[in-house]
Amino acid sequence: MIVRDVDNIIGTEREVHSEGWVSRRLLLKSDRMGFSFHETIIPAGAELHMWYKNHLEAVYCVAGNGSIEDLATGEVHEIHDGVIYALDQHDRHILRGGTEDMRLICAFNPPVTGRETHDADGAYELVEDD
Amino acid sequence: MIVRDVDNIIGTEREVHSEGWVSRRLLLKSDRMGFSFHETIIPAGAELHMWYKNHLEAVYCVAGNGSIEDLATGEVHEIHDGVIYALDQHDRHILRGGTEDMRLICAFNPPVTGRETHDADGAYELVEDD
Repeated sequence: MIVRDVDNIIGTEREVHSEGWVSRRLLLKSDRMGFSFHETIIPAGAELHMWYKNHLEAVYCVAGNGSIEDLATGEVHEIHDGVIYALDQHDRHILRGGTEDMRLICAFNPPVTGRETHDADGAYELVEDD
Repeated sequence: MIVRDVDNIIGTEREVHSEGWVSRRLLLKSDRMGFSFHETIIPAGAELHMWYKNHLEAVYCVAGNGSIEDLATGEVHEIHDGVIYALDQHDRHILRGGTEDMRLICAFNPPVTGRETHDADGAYELVEDD
């Protein structure tokens, strides 16, 4: 059994700061769960262009608000506490912060190793580390 | 892209009530993410004996409090907002509600189909539906 407190992740290499967001990596590939699990904070007013070419991602909002624009269809979906979105088609999207910081709980398949960076398309590359 | 609001799941067949808990199935196997994704509410004072023999599960607390007892070691870990536990060894455990209802965000691998029930051991059986 793995037990972790996010308070012990904040300020370590498992907390990643990038333009417009901060992500705490609660479970990574090395934890061998078959997915990775993250808490990501999107500040109010942020705008992130994202395209996870190599990963499927599910994102559940548990606080704050914002929106996601599906670049394939142009549809904009409001995000608030209780809304999940799943990028089951590696969907290109724009994630926008709203009037309050969004607290998002995320799972990735395949699991993120923790060594990826977002490339120019907003994707994580695939990293093999086994 | 899949987008769902838990408000549209509450009261449907995707909301499962059982002894001591209620679970909203946000993403199931049929959503083809490679994991399933759930929101589970554990009432204050509940006590659940669980053993997921067939699944790995990660559980992240975003509100409320409780504890988990690892039956392999006897250790008890406090759970509160910001604590994750991962049953990477199919760990037998007792989950206890605390003084406030716990709001837990959960991912399962392999993904739950939605047709499982907890058996006498507190496990989900494996259901093949492809």
